[in-house]
This record gives sequence, structure tokens and C-alpha cells, in this order.
Amino acid sequence: MEECETYPTASVAVGYFPVVEPIRAVQWSPGGDAVRIIDQRRLPGELVERDLRSLHDVCDAIATLAVRGAPAIGVAAAMGLVTSLQDFAGDDRNGFAILMESNARAIVATRPTAVNLSWAIGRMLARAAATAASPKAVLAALRVEADAILGEDRAMCDAIGDHGLVFVPDGARVLTHCNAGALATAGIGTALAPVYRAHAVGRHVSVIAGETRPLLQGSRLTAWEMRRAGIPVRVITDGMAASAMRGGDVDVVLVGADRIAANGDVANKIGTYALAVAAKHHHVPFIVCAPWSTVDPATAGGDGIVVEERASGEVRLVAGVPVVAEGADTWNPAFDITPANLITAIVTDRGVHRPPYSFTA
Amino acid sequence: MEECETYPTASVAVGYFPVVEPIRAVQWSPGGDAVRIIDQRRLPGELVERDLRSLHDVCDAIATLAVRGAPAIGVAAAMGLVTSLQDFAGDDRNGFAILMESNARAIVATRPTAVNLSWAIGRMLARAAATAASPKAVLAALRVEADAILGEDRAMCDAIGDHGLVFVPDGARVLTHCNAGALATAGIGTALAPVYRAHAVGRHVSVIAGETRPLLQGSRLTAWEMRRAGIPVRVITDGMAASAMRGGDVDVVLVGADRIAANGDVANKIGTYALAVAAKHHHVPFIVCAPWSTVDPATAGGDGIVVEERASGEVRLVAGVPVVAEGADTWNPAFDITPANLITAIVTDRGVHRPPYSFTA
Repeated sequence: MEECETYPTASVAVGYFPVVEPIRAVQWSPGGDAVRIIDQRRLPGELVERDLRSLHDVCDAIATLAVRGAPAIGVAAAMGLVTSLQDFAGDDRNGFAILMESNARAIVATRPTAVNLSWAIGRMLARAAATAASPKAVLAALRVEADAILGEDRAMCDAIGDHGLVFVPDGARVLTHCNAGALATAGIGTALAPVYRAHAVGRHVSVIAGETRPLLQGSRLTAWEMRRAGIPVRVITDGMAASAMRGGDVDVVLVGADRIAANGDVANKIGTYALAVAAKHHHVPFIVCAPWSTVDPATAGGDGIVVEERASGEVRLVAGVPVVAEGADTWNPAFDITPANLITAIVTDRGVHRPPYSFTA
Repeated sequence: MEECETYPTASVAVGYFPVVEPIRAVQWSPGGDAVRIIDQRRLPGELVERDLRSLHDVCDAIATLAVRGAPAIGVAAAMGLVTSLQDFAGDDRNGFAILMESNARAIVATRPTAVNLSWAIGRMLARAAATAASPKAVLAALRVEADAILGEDRAMCDAIGDHGLVFVPDGARVLTHCNAGALATAGIGTALAPVYRAHAVGRHVSVIAGETRPLLQGSRLTAWEMRRAGIPVRVITDGMAASAMRGGDVDVVLVGADRIAANGDVANKIGTYALAVAAKHHHVPFIVCAPWSTVDPATAGGDGIVVEERASGEVRLVAGVPVVAEGADTWNPAFDITPANLITAIVTDRGVHRPPYSFTA
């Protein structure tokens, strides 16, 4: 089985389960005029794809988490900037430039903490600025750039999978949080990339997925994509994770990141920090897997990261049903900060980084 | 305000909010022929009281968590044994004794981990055994014993509140888990008793309630009863607690217990252990509040406690809506074990116990 090097070819070679098409959370529509996404709000009940074309489509999909996961957001944003401009290539240069700037600002504003979003849009604008030509030529250049971002994202996932494979030996029981899998990227994911790669090379690997309140990305999305890939998965509530570690049921924790500061402090989905504390207490390796683009050398440490506070309804309601006593306050930060001293290693597409971390551009 | 010694009299004296009737989670119905409970499955949406009379009523209410919380279960079980037998006082001695044994076994079987349940029923049977008289006289003796258990439970809560007051100074921000409040006892609760007492003596105190997946007793019940008492409460998802400690927002953790081993290891709602690990990491006092009847000197340590595994539907569904991808496994232990070395103090109705713990009968 060792000759199988890519997911999902190994599915065939190993023969445990039928051929599985790779998940494509973000891709061009067949005609190339829209961004085709898997609407993640509908999972796990239904697999629904949506084609995003207008600025409104793109912003709405990002803001409502129809498309989510830092890498996927960056890719969708870049591609969405193209589709939002494609009907305006006949405008004069000045008008087109103003529209491009305006659309870019609107897209970046949808998720303030997502560094990949501003990174991808910044890269698109730089490409446009380097193309002193007609709107039509600029649009063509933007499409090339978005295509590159899409392709690089897939390659990034594969690289993280390869570098992270060392942390997922045969028999490994991996605890993960939220969804940093194929659904969060254009490729095979970040935190789950080493899991997919281990599975592809024939290692027995199983996943414990923290459900990840409030939005349940773990139980809805991670469980769905692991099942789809034929990888054994067990869902636990977030409060059970420390207990699972104490019981010796967790060999390694793999999580993603929304931003990594120069000193290695990591912003990720709320609940990540609790896992890091528990992993430290139980001497379980705690590994962060994220694209290099998540590293923000301009931010010295975690204290400099602004954490997005999301609407209280996410805590108050589950599937539309109120679960919080009327009149009680809630608190709903989207992220928490895990200090570098709790992180065993950070895996990026550039390799495995070990403490002390000191990231520079 | 210091002259106010009992909840809820202080509500009047302090004058921050209208007079609040104490919560009576378990009491006799006005006619005395039924156990009147607050149906906790209906909270926070509706305040519904149910009268339990038959064996089936009593077992169903305990098994389905309509009545819940170790102390409340013990009280309801004792009272329910009486109401389940009251129509059979005309039976012959032997038939009545057989029925009593059979009902007692059925009630104990509803929640295997709840030590208070078997404790209360054991006490009732001992009383019956000491009453070698007619079924009518035995029934009368059982009612006296159940009344005593009810009254002692209320007194137990008050005593825990008094002993635990030292951990809730003015301004204290208390993190709690699940519901170990008035709804879990016949009185003012266990973990929340010191909070009620602090509030009653005029201290400013606020509560952070972990929502407590899977059954959300924190967001549904603790938030409801704190709001009702006029005590500020903020609901967080379970994964946020460690982050709140890191942010300096938690002065003390107060939790209940379902069983306490001789060495001080504590079985309590799943998620408690994660809070204990986080509290240790952040040097936040971690206090267990429970009735002395929760102490089980016959169990040497936590390893000897059998943890009840509950139905997977509790994790799979929230308010009847599926939240777990189809085909994924789940894991749903009702409790976890917190080792004594993470517990700053254990408060019972007998006083404040400090490590090293060594409980004997």
C-alpha cells in the first residue's frame, strides 16, 4: 500500500470501501462564471452545492458560514472577486478600478479575524495593480491569480499532509476540533490532511471529533467527511475531551488555526485552548496544522489578535430551538488564543516548526 | 443587609428585584398523596409541575430526568416509594412487604450511578424493617422517614451554603457546570447554595454557567434559576471555560458531585474534569459542594466508580434535530472522574474538607 501517495487513490488500493470522489468545498462552476461551493450550513443533512456569482452572493456565503474555514474563505474570496467583476469588464478603467476596490473592501469586511481573507484579496489587488491595462485584461489577470490561489491551496493541503504524517503513526487515535478538513479548504484540509494521508498510505487511523459548540462543525462537518472517506470517527461533546485524554483514548491532538502570531501563539476556534491545556496536562502532543499564509509575522503575540465576537443567537439557539433561559446573558467569542508554550509543533506547507517559534516574513 | 440570613428574604431586604418565592423542585402535593416536582425537561420554556403518584410515575420521572440532581433524586425516590405504596396498606403484611421490596428495587434501578438514590431507598427500607407492624403502620413510618429526608435535604443545602460562603467573597465571579442548584435539590442547591447565601447577605456575585452538553442543564436550568433569583448570569459553551479563566474572568469554580470516593475523587457531570484541569492550570480554586450522603467511603477511589453510559441520542440530537453526521459513532458517558489532587476543597453539610481527603463512615 505504500506506493499509494495521494488521497483518494488509496481508497481503491486499500479496498476497504468504495471509490470516493475527493470533496471539493470550493471550485469553479463548469462554465467558470461562478464559484461553486458546498453549502456547509446544510450538512450533514443534505449535500447542496451553490454557485456564487454576484458580490452579494459571495459576501453572504462567507458571512453566513455557507463557506467556512480560513483557507476555503481565502480561495472563495479571490474567486468571488473575479465573478463579482466579470459583468463590468466593459466599464472604463477608472470605474472598474473603483468597483474592484469597493468589492474587495466589502469581501474583506465579512470576517474581520480571517487573515487568509485579507491575504487573498490583497494578493488579488496587487496583481491588478501590476496590470496597467484594460479592465478586460485586468479581469483576465485576476482570474489567473485566483486560479493560482486555488491550485496553491490544494498543494498546500497536500504538503501539510505530508509534513504532518509523522504525527499520525499506524493505530493513531486523533482528537480534532471544529472542522479543519477538506470542507475548510479547496483540498484535503489542514488538521485533517495528515489523517487523510495516513489513511491513504494504509495506516489505521481513527478520529475523535469534538462537536464544537456553538455551530457544531465537528459533529456536522468533520464527522461527515471522515465517514465519507471511510475513516472511523466518534463524536464527543466538547466537555468530554479532557476525560478521553485521561482515559488514554487520545494519541495526538490535531487542530487548525485562523491566525498564527510571530511568537507561535495561535488563534483558532473557541474551545481549542481548553484542549491545549488538557493535552499539556496529559502529555498528549498538541499539533497545529495551518497554511503558511496563516502566519502573521506582523502580529508579535496572541494579545495582538482581535477576536471576533459573534451573535449571541449562536449560543441561544440550536437548530432554531431556544436552549438558554430567557434574560440570561451569553458570551460568544469566535476564537480563543492558545499560547505557544502549549503547542508541541506547528505544521505548515513549509514543514514542521518546533518551539521556540519565531516566524518572520 | 448582613442581618438577612436566609434566601430569599434578602431579595426583599436588598430591594434589587421583586419578592421571589423559593424554588421547590421536590415537595409534597397539597393533599400529600403525590410527589410534586418541577418538570425540568420543560425548562426554560415553561414552568410545569407534575404530581407523581404511581411507581411508574416515579420511575419515569427519574429515568427521563424530569426530576434530576443527585439530592433531588434521593428525596423524590423516598417520597415516591411512599406514594407508590399508599393504595396497598390494606394488603396483608407479606404481600405489602413484597411489593415494597419490588418497588424499591425498581426505583433504585432507574439511575445506576446515583448514590443518593440507593442511599435514600436503603434508609426507607431500614425504617420499614424497624417497624414490625401492620402495613398501615409501616406506611405511616415510611412517610415520617421520607419527610425527614426532605427536611434534612433542605437543611443540608443551607449548611453547604453557610460553609461554602467563604469561597464567594463580595464581587466573586463563579463558574459552575450543569445544575447543582435549587432545581437539583429540595432546598437551595449544593454548588449554588453558597451563591444564594452570598447574594442573601448582600454580596455582589455573578455566575458563568457552562451550558453542559449534551443535556444543557447549565443554559436551561442554572441560567433560569439564577435569573429568577436576580443573580447576574452569563451562559457560555463548555469549550469557552478555559478561555474565560485565561482572561481572568473566573474567581472560583463551584460544582456539585454525584459520588465522592474515600480518597476525595469525585464523579460529577461529564465536563467537570475538564474544568478541574483548566482551573489547576490557571490557579483558580476548584470547589466541590455536595451533601455528606454523596460521600461513599466504601469506594476507595475514582477508579471504582461505574460511570453510567447514556443513550447516544443525547449527543446526536439537540431539541429533536440531528446534529451528528449519519453513521458516525458517538460516546456519551454521563459522568467523569475528577481526581482529588485537582480539588481545592470539598464542602459538605458537615463543613469544609481540605486535602488530603480521607473520608470514613
